[in-house]
Amino acid sequence: MRAVVYQEPYNVAVESVEDPRIEHPNDVIVRITSSAICGSDLHMYAGRTDAKGGLVFGHENMGIIEEVGSAVTSLRKGQRVVMPFNVACGFCKNCLDGKTGFCLTVNPGFAGGAYGYVAMGPYPGGQAEYLRVPYADFNCLPLPEGTEHEADFALLADIFPTGYHGCELADVRPGDTVAVYGAGPVGLMASYSALIRGASKVFTVDKVPERLNKAREIGAIPIDFSAGNPVQQILDQTNGEGTDKGVDAVGYQALAHSGEGEEPATVLNDLIDTVRPTGALGIPGLYVPSDPGAPNEQARKGQLLVSIGRMFEKGLRAGTGQANVKRYNRQLRDLIIAGRAKPSFVVTKELPLDQAPDAYQKFDKRLEGYTKVILHP
Amino acid sequence: MRAVVYQEPYNVAVESVEDPRIEHPNDVIVRITSSAICGSDLHMYAGRTDAKGGLVFGHENMGIIEEVGSAVTSLRKGQRVVMPFNVACGFCKNCLDGKTGFCLTVNPGFAGGAYGYVAMGPYPGGQAEYLRVPYADFNCLPLPEGTEHEADFALLADIFPTGYHGCELADVRPGDTVAVYGAGPVGLMASYSALIRGASKVFTVDKVPERLNKAREIGAIPIDFSAGNPVQQILDQTNGEGTDKGVDAVGYQALAHSGEGEEPATVLNDLIDTVRPTGALGIPGLYVPSDPGAPNEQARKGQLLVSIGRMFEKGLRAGTGQANVKRYNRQLRDLIIAGRAKPSFVVTKELPLDQAPDAYQKFDKRLEGYTKVILHP
Amino acid sequence: MRAVVYQEPYNVAVESVEDPRIEHPNDVIVRITSSAICGSDLHMYAGRTDAKGGLVFGHENMGIIEEVGSAVTSLRKGQRVVMPFNVACGFCKNCLDGKTGFCLTVNPGFAGGAYGYVAMGPYPGGQAEYLRVPYADFNCLPLPEGTEHEADFALLADIFPTGYHGCELADVRPGDTVAVYGAGPVGLMASYSALIRGASKVFTVDKVPERLNKAREIGAIPIDFSAGNPVQQILDQTNGEGTDKGVDAVGYQALAHSGEGEEPATVLNDLIDTVRPTGALGIPGLYVPSDPGAPNEQARKGQLLVSIGRMFEKGLRAGTGQANVKRYNRQLRDLIIAGRAKPSFVVTKELPLDQAPDAYQKFDKRLEGYTKVILHP
Amino acid sequence: MRAVVYQEPYNVAVESVEDPRIEHPNDVIVRITSSAICGSDLHMYAGRTDAKGGLVFGHENMGIIEEVGSAVTSLRKGQRVVMPFNVACGFCKNCLDGKTGFCLTVNPGFAGGAYGYVAMGPYPGGQAEYLRVPYADFNCLPLPEGTEHEADFALLADIFPTGYHGCELADVRPGDTVAVYGAGPVGLMASYSALIRGASKVFTVDKVPERLNKAREIGAIPIDFSAGNPVQQILDQTNGEGTDKGVDAVGYQALAHSGEGEEPATVLNDLIDTVRPTGALGIPGLYVPSDPGAPNEQARKGQLLVSIGRMFEKGLRAGTGQANVKRYNRQLRDLIIAGRAKPSFVVTKELPLDQAPDAYQKFDKRLEGYTKVILHP
Repeated sequence: MRAVVYQEPYNVAVESVEDPRIEHPNDVIVRITSSAICGSDLHMYAGRTDAKGGLVFGHENMGIIEEVGSAVTSLRKGQRVVMPFNVACGFCKNCLDGKTGFCLTVNPGFAGGAYGYVAMGPYPGGQAEYLRVPYADFNCLPLPEGTEHEADFALLADIFPTGYHGCELADVRPGDTVAVYGAGPVGLMASYSALIRGASKVFTVDKVPERLNKAREIGAIPIDFSAGNPVQQILDQTNGEGTDKGVDAVGYQALAHSGEGEEPATVLNDLIDTVRPTGALGIPGLYVPSDPGAPNEQARKGQLLVSIGRMFEKGLRAGTGQANVKRYNRQLRDLIIAGRAKPSFVVTKELPLDQAPDAYQKFDKRLEGYTKVILHP
Repeated sequence: MRAVVYQEPYNVAVESVEDPRIEHPNDVIVRITSSAICGSDLHMYAGRTDAKGGLVFGHENMGIIEEVGSAVTSLRKGQRVVMPFNVACGFCKNCLDGKTGFCLTVNPGFAGGAYGYVAMGPYPGGQAEYLRVPYADFNCLPLPEGTEHEADFALLADIFPTGYHGCELADVRPGDTVAVYGAGPVGLMASYSALIRGASKVFTVDKVPERLNKAREIGAIPIDFSAGNPVQQILDQTNGEGTDKGVDAVGYQALAHSGEGEEPATVLNDLIDTVRPTGALGIPGLYVPSDPGAPNEQARKGQLLVSIGRMFEKGLRAGTGQANVKRYNRQLRDLIIAGRAKPSFVVTKELPLDQAPDAYQKFDKRLEGYTKVILHP
Repeated sequence: MRAVVYQEPYNVAVESVEDPRIEHPNDVIVRITSSAICGSDLHMYAGRTDAKGGLVFGHENMGIIEEVGSAVTSLRKGQRVVMPFNVACGFCKNCLDGKTGFCLTVNPGFAGGAYGYVAMGPYPGGQAEYLRVPYADFNCLPLPEGTEHEADFALLADIFPTGYHGCELADVRPGDTVAVYGAGPVGLMASYSALIRGASKVFTVDKVPERLNKAREIGAIPIDFSAGNPVQQILDQTNGEGTDKGVDAVGYQALAHSGEGEEPATVLNDLIDTVRPTGALGIPGLYVPSDPGAPNEQARKGQLLVSIGRMFEKGLRAGTGQANVKRYNRQLRDLIIAGRAKPSFVVTKELPLDQAPDAYQKFDKRLEGYTKVILHP
Repeated sequence: MRAVVYQEPYNVAVESVEDPRIEHPNDVIVRITSSAICGSDLHMYAGRTDAKGGLVFGHENMGIIEEVGSAVTSLRKGQRVVMPFNVACGFCKNCLDGKTGFCLTVNPGFAGGAYGYVAMGPYPGGQAEYLRVPYADFNCLPLPEGTEHEADFALLADIFPTGYHGCELADVRPGDTVAVYGAGPVGLMASYSALIRGASKVFTVDKVPERLNKAREIGAIPIDFSAGNPVQQILDQTNGEGTDKGVDAVGYQALAHSGEGEEPATVLNDLIDTVRPTGALGIPGLYVPSDPGAPNEQARKGQLLVSIGRMFEKGLRAGTGQANVKRYNRQLRDLIIAGRAKPSFVVTKELPLDQAPDAYQKFDKRLEGYTKVILHP
């Protein structure tokens, strides 16, 4: 089959690779109809990880079940499904607790597995014609037949639940004011999720006009950090008090306020300054324990200078980590079906698989129109 | 009246000061029967704060109501009461949410007030014969008449609820394994609280034999960090997995593992290494946004190098801040009355007020027998 | 001053009564600008309670502070405020726990107090020119100056928080399907609140066209129980599964499905049949321990035949009781100010105080246009 | 193999039946070492259900894995395991939500399955030499090798988690006072669990001296309802206030206070009178939607006269339903291993399988020494 295969930094190719097959009775094979490119793919693409050439990318996958393992109970050939980016077993201690992003079974020696991602286990990605899905009863979310809502449902694999997870970690409740740093796909989904959860005001921080416009369109208040300190701008709009809650949808590759160069703890410390005493921070934005490209020695080991003194003084809480997609995807699917959520507003481009190399290049450069790309193999 | 008055670093004196009086109809005056010396008093005592001479110390106060303001509803003269160290109004946004440690009313311009503490509002301390208690209906917890459980009840002002708060922030649940760093009074109370909440195993880390012995006596597993890396010791006793939850009862004046010199983020980063993926950290140990005596420039601004990359990879949560005593003190009082909690095991010395100067000196040096001192004016 | 005074069943009059005055240093006097008539006033109006002649009605009150008691801290003359219908002290065990509808202080011997209501304490109602508000710092919610949103804010005294409380008791979460029985003011507010909280589908059951239309307008799915069994209609629209959650906004004066005569447990048992296994019921609709007008002896003692066997088999949870308004009113106010909630869609009539007698008569007959009436003294 | 087979009311026999075998790749076969007799077995035994002759009893099962299906991942032959009485799939909507007692997969058309129980699916019981366990990765809880704690671990199949579930439904928190109605095995486990969760006082109501004594031994306060109204006794010991929380560990076969004849709603209504306003009720005791042996027509349909008016006035919450054992059994196992729980205090008799007929007969008559019987095949 054809698949998007990582070659070396800044180079992916569409190549023929072996078809996946049922390896375990609980597997299914899915014919991929949509697989999105994720911002976290860029970490590998840009050589900021240990990914080796030959890896098939793609962890935001949906499609039609093509073949069903002999032990699978609830699925049948022809069914339309979307898979969480996390591969999970469903029966380990963490899965039982709803923490499916930290499954102890699927990637021995580590808590958590994923498709098409370095160090996340032996699971080729879905930017390809077919995908093997292990523990299929657990990992497949059934969708209505047909092709309706294809782009909306595709976002259930990762970014809609990940944005929502940011709000869950930040304990966003009806009436809250919320600051979301970052208006990339995850930041927009976090802003959108905060509004779904009943936030009264959502401030979304970025500097890219296309992204800030999308934030405004969904009812958030755009904050352009290139126009002035974002903390101060938000304080000014909250009687100097700050917001009730905050979400970091940027992570360690945060830009300095100046817009020049990375300052990995900028967003964390801005959030600590933005959120009012007793508030909570949700941190779905990625921080890594090892970053060879970091600006200093500590950051290379994942250690950042955090304003922990201020955080304590304010009595803030923080939740971190990748989304447990399984915990939210059914409910978010139901909002889509009911017409009460339409996350595909974030999708800017839908392309055939063979345009992936070009799309990666442009997405990496944050070119306009490449905020969120879905591939259709 | 006689009171413990701060003079200058390493010097307190018992002096005559003006008697407190009813200043507002919602005040009461309490005749102090017990007022404990707290580890956080030592920050001021040792000159690590901006405290000025003349400040009356004492935020762990209990006694008998002597005089009742005209608007007070629920209290009467002669009633035995204990007061949370936090002064709180009961009606601001934070108090309504149970976050009485972050009251917006009592210390304008800041979230939170306390008795006898620098920058925490105009409330003289209770290491004195009398104490003025504002918003008395809200701030006084009634106790049974008589003198029974005097030392147990005195600990309801701060350290028992503060230790319990550490467990609440860490979301300690029945069956959990818990690591508590620090076996000072708060660490012992956190360990004790974890067991009350049904923890299966509690590891308590310190190096002082007296403290480790007390941990063992209440059913915790003592971990002597002078005998080897505490993280490794705990991993070894949890099948290499780490604990479900962790509590930092040390704060920014943490010692390096070597035991020589302070390393302010040591305990934080140890906790991140000790707690297993999906776990939670409770941080009642103090971190400050400004520390003139810190070992480096960043730490002087309250910024510490935190292993945020590892924390994210593990999907840890963290809660910080001083205890909202009011949220727990009634329930903990009821456990004491029912005979199911006896926190006074931590008290090593009960002294008359005029021995305060000597007690401060010895407590500051962590001399044996001075783990927890209660003054009886 | 002029006030709406209960005379005898089916008879209220606007009379001159004595002006309220500051009785306690924590009181304020509010000049009432809006006071709504509540469905629960009709229980008294129709003689279904022990209310005696002379009672001033009105527990949904807002206005301008006219006079401030000497111990009041946070309020000033001229401030616009709305008061929860519950009178509460702010410092008893239940208030501390956020259960301000069950205050142990303000109505000795009973848990809970209210303005202008039989057996709820010595607090005259606010369908009058002035109102005394005890524990004013706790009981007044400040509003923006001016007259904007008057009708929206007036609903913060009771029905908006009460509808929201139904959703809180039913644990309504994003993505849930919800059945709300009753499309009177509280049922509409519950439906509206469910949508604010992110419900995917809300089914609102009634038979009055005006009310069903309002449900449809806010995005709920109207279910006309006069057109067929409402349980079956909802099952038909949920693949035979039932809803995730349910709210009883009707209470003990429920009509039989036939529409003829009361069957006090009809809604409770319908809910048990409507909600799917593992679901939850929120019951803000009133049930009383003594109802002289009940259709049978058990019901007169508040004992109803409940399908407890079915409830257990399904593992349902249920929460009951009057709303703890204070727990929600600030957040709901902020949603109104931010333009994200506009509960006044439910208001059908605004009248001067002296038209109260006519309004009561028509409201009691459920005449069109009298779904929700606000009086402006 | 040999198994306990139901014949007709009041008659079970130990017979030879066919050995179970792997029917699905996710099955395992367990050689049973312990299988307890449960109070709920008596409903079938006494002919109060539709159970037909030929049913193998036994839903409290533990043993050693004998054979492993080809799709099973985490288990191996020779491993010691205990199974929740609920059979569950691990991937349906309810299982994902932790509601494994209401699995939608294993017993089509109904929410929930179990071993050896009428209407709970095609799963023979474990009062036999061998047991087939479906979805074995999900349904087997691994135990330490050896034979230590055999009786403690056996109780993890049902009654320890079921008692704990009662406390979870009642939201028992540290410091709470709790009333537990019933001191049979589940009531004792609920009382024990309340203490593990940090309750300050637990009142356990029964009339059988052996049971009341066991309650006293674990630190609960026994209330003998044959010596006076239990509600009044508990009010007298709580300053007339009632308890914070309550657990119904009796269910629909409750005895009247007189001790003569059943009054199925007695315990429910007693609890409503016993628990203070704002409290919560946990109802793990069984109520059924159809009871042919009930004392009246409504009760035969599972409809009981409940004091719903009083419940509403007090603002009580209630949770019902069979325990989701999987949600608690790991944590409770860890408490047993750590030596912090020893639930086997409730076990009064351990017998070989062939004495089952006699044991059923004596247990049904509540003879002394037959409070809790474990069979060892």
